[in-house]
Amino acid sequence: MRDIDGRAMAKAIGAEVAATAERLRADGVVPTLAVVVPTDDESTAWYVRSIERAAQNRGVECRVLQLEDPSAERLKSELDTLSADDSVHGIICQTPLPEGVTLADVGEHIAVAKDVDGANPASLGRLAAGLDTFAPATAAAVAEILRQDEVALKGKNVTIIGRSTVVGKPAALLLLAEHATVTICHSRTENLPEVCARADVLVAAVGRPEMVTAEYVKPGAIVIDVGTNPTAEGGLVGDVNAESVASVAGALTPVPGGVGPVTTQLLLRHTVQAAA
Amino acid sequence: MRDIDGRAMAKAIGAEVAATAERLRADGVVPTLAVVVPTDDESTAWYVRSIERAAQNRGVECRVLQLEDPSAERLKSELDTLSADDSVHGIICQTPLPEGVTLADVGEHIAVAKDVDGANPASLGRLAAGLDTFAPATAAAVAEILRQDEVALKGKNVTIIGRSTVVGKPAALLLLAEHATVTICHSRTENLPEVCARADVLVAAVGRPEMVTAEYVKPGAIVIDVGTNPTAEGGLVGDVNAESVASVAGALTPVPGGVGPVTTQLLLRHTVQAAA
Repeated sequence: MRDIDGRAMAKAIGAEVAATAERLRADGVVPTLAVVVPTDDESTAWYVRSIERAAQNRGVECRVLQLEDPSAERLKSELDTLSADDSVHGIICQTPLPEGVTLADVGEHIAVAKDVDGANPASLGRLAAGLDTFAPATAAAVAEILRQDEVALKGKNVTIIGRSTVVGKPAALLLLAEHATVTICHSRTENLPEVCARADVLVAAVGRPEMVTAEYVKPGAIVIDVGTNPTAEGGLVGDVNAESVASVAGALTPVPGGVGPVTTQLLLRHTVQAAA
Repeated sequence: MRDIDGRAMAKAIGAEVAATAERLRADGVVPTLAVVVPTDDESTAWYVRSIERAAQNRGVECRVLQLEDPSAERLKSELDTLSADDSVHGIICQTPLPEGVTLADVGEHIAVAKDVDGANPASLGRLAAGLDTFAPATAAAVAEILRQDEVALKGKNVTIIGRSTVVGKPAALLLLAEHATVTICHSRTENLPEVCARADVLVAAVGRPEMVTAEYVKPGAIVIDVGTNPTAEGGLVGDVNAESVASVAGALTPVPGGVGPVTTQLLLRHTVQAAA
């Protein structure tokens, strides 16, 4: 089994982002990403710092707006303000959200043109309708990795485990647009290993540590592991049991070092695109 | 093979619509559907007359706005006006559209609350995000027929042939919400008959007369035929070859008399819901 090197792909995207950011700055535009952080969740804080670092390395300004458990109204009002602010080009709102607040609800207050992580349902609808829009960065990373790895998709069976609004559904739409035959599985799917084992490309986006084992994988299949499950030791583990699938899969994105770094660079790419 | 009686289902929905319309009228609200017809296409005119008749029978007022090959700007402006008109509760824009105009583009000018045929990409996005919204009536009819026929969906394999924005994709989202495992196929799908023959429920929404034959159908499967292909004799034929699948399928929606009448009544149901 071959490891797909997400870090190398991310580096290439990052270099392209840096070049675009430099051109923008030469024209007097400072590409700017606003990151709204509505809770003091520890792993969110870690992730936000990694976005800040990545942005700094690529010439993208990153403004972090830390809120202390805001009401839905306050959060929407902040997103409205950022949407109207000409100096801000991209806006993301980190999860988890305060209790009783849903991403779809607050996402409607992120202007579609600045919705670099596809949180506004209107962005998802535009994606489904084939209009120009930003897909959620994680779903976009799945499609980007398959594109960069030159994986044949036209007519092929792609199976996605997970039907979330942020990964499973938008990834299905993106890969459908690449002419794949797309199957969406989830916790209720009967005979899940059997269904997955028919896939030429298997995307695991389920949030269960190392759930995907050899029996889920067709010999030679490309496996994309979207899972980022924290371990007791403070590390990360994917949804795929790499050791188990190693003898069957053709290639796998490792965790860490697969989908994650590509996702971060795509957020920055979306931001410079929004600023251009 | 059992025929699924779409006309009987439509009648039941129509009775419920009429009761709601009567209550609304007693409260001084005349539930009103505006139908914008942007071309003089003959089969559109036929379909619009059938909507008018159905609306009249159920106490829903139907306002037809016939336009003569309008520009995109004119069409958008008419839809904006109707969206702002408090006496209008539902708005549909008939296809075909004038050359160079796309439904997604003009659909954005139908207010989501009045978008009873789910033409606004924002409605599709809200559907994908699990928010309250109107699905395109044809896709909603597929889900309604399966519900009324008490077809088990949870965990089952549902395969949809066709990935259009008006049927395939929204039907996939609706059936995914019913916990089906959903596969979306299309013209590029490899081994299409084989993929379809794994489905417990097969939805044909491809627009090719009688394309689906026995080899596409798992024994006992429920087959929903969304096709309405005009015949040389002035009739309608579905995407399914009823004679061929008869010995294999468990049940089939006939054409005419299946999805079509349910779709029309759901447009009216959506309109009275929007008026309520």
